[in-house]
Amino acid sequence: MAARALAIHIRRAQQGDAEAIMATFASPRAMAGTLQLPYPSAEIWRKRIADQGPEDFMLVAEVKGTVVGNLGLHPAGRARRRHAASVGMSVRDDMQRQGVGTALLLAAIDIADHWLNYTRLELTVYTDNIAAVTLYRNFGFVIEGTLQGFAYRNGRYVDAYTMARLRTLPAAPVSATAQARQRPQRKAAKTTRKRTAA
Amino acid sequence: MAARALAIHIRRAQQGDAEAIMATFASPRAMAGTLQLPYPSAEIWRKRIADQGPEDFMLVAEVKGTVVGNLGLHPAGRARRRHAASVGMSVRDDMQRQGVGTALLLAAIDIADHWLNYTRLELTVYTDNIAAVTLYRNFGFVIEGTLQGFAYRNGRYVDAYTMARLRTLPAAPVSATAQARQRPQRKAAKTTRKRTAA
Repeated sequence: MAARALAIHIRRAQQGDAEAIMATFASPRAMAGTLQLPYPSAEIWRKRIADQGPEDFMLVAEVKGTVVGNLGLHPAGRARRRHAASVGMSVRDDMQRQGVGTALLLAAIDIADHWLNYTRLELTVYTDNIAAVTLYRNFGFVIEGTLQGFAYRNGRYVDAYTMARLRTLPAAPVSATAQARQRPQRKAAKTTRKRTAA
Repeated sequence: MAARALAIHIRRAQQGDAEAIMATFASPRAMAGTLQLPYPSAEIWRKRIADQGPEDFMLVAEVKGTVVGNLGLHPAGRARRRHAASVGMSVRDDMQRQGVGTALLLAAIDIADHWLNYTRLELTVYTDNIAAVTLYRNFGFVIEGTLQGFAYRNGRYVDAYTMARLRTLPAAPVSATAQARQRPQRKAAKTTRKRTAA
């Protein structure tokens, strides 16, 4: 019998979510899978939520009124890297593999593609986090490299994949002036072809 | 006839260097090879030099009293990435291929290895910047991946290599207490061996 799909609600993080985010990182797998530290602090998360810039998106996934996962979508750089954003994500250990990560990523990619016009999404993921790597691959992320000894985790240095999801730019905007300039040219070309055919 | 080697003096950047650093980034190749922008600003560099943290190293290379190159060595992250630092470097166009980059890198790697105990140095470099890639390779950096469309440069998106130089950790420090605890054990082992041999 297939499990009934969870009702997952995605929204922007707010001050009151700090405790729930802390609880997510108090679950060992979620903490180890990121760059977070043991003994997470609600205070640090309150500050992080408050300090977001206008282009920072900290999203949370709510199941039955409880926040069980979070995702950050942040500009990867300024000016010459304005097309790129970085993604980081975590789901509370007891809520993993139930579609929470998928729901968070769907929401993030929707705003990245359709509103923020990012054409390059980047992330790092530990090479042994198979579930996460598979999820990212399903969303079109590809492995661009392997960063050796990227971070320290439970007494050892671990490698990470650097992954990216690339999107082709939509057709560039064309100004009314440019369109007006192009129209007569196209007509002229057609006329030429007609003349040749005649 | 071989060119005489330049006398290159490496030191920490200071407020008065902002104009010379600006001049470096006003030279087109140096600007394009980084994430810097056209029309560099001495004001931004003055602020950047002033805002350095205690673990940020902004070094400059001086030739005949003029700063012609700069290098930044910065912590790559906190806590779980404390072993890693990132490197970024630039040499004024008319002073390239004269050993300035080598002198800057030598200085940075010396402090990274012998004083700051970084075991992972990271950098990104545009894939078509052959001279820089070769220099980094000569210093033990390896290509860990290729980041597609990493940055925008003169009207196009360009790929970058992510490179790293890994160093094995020196022997771990042994406390006086641990040494004292080990000594009698070693003596006991010797005695045992003697007894067996007898």
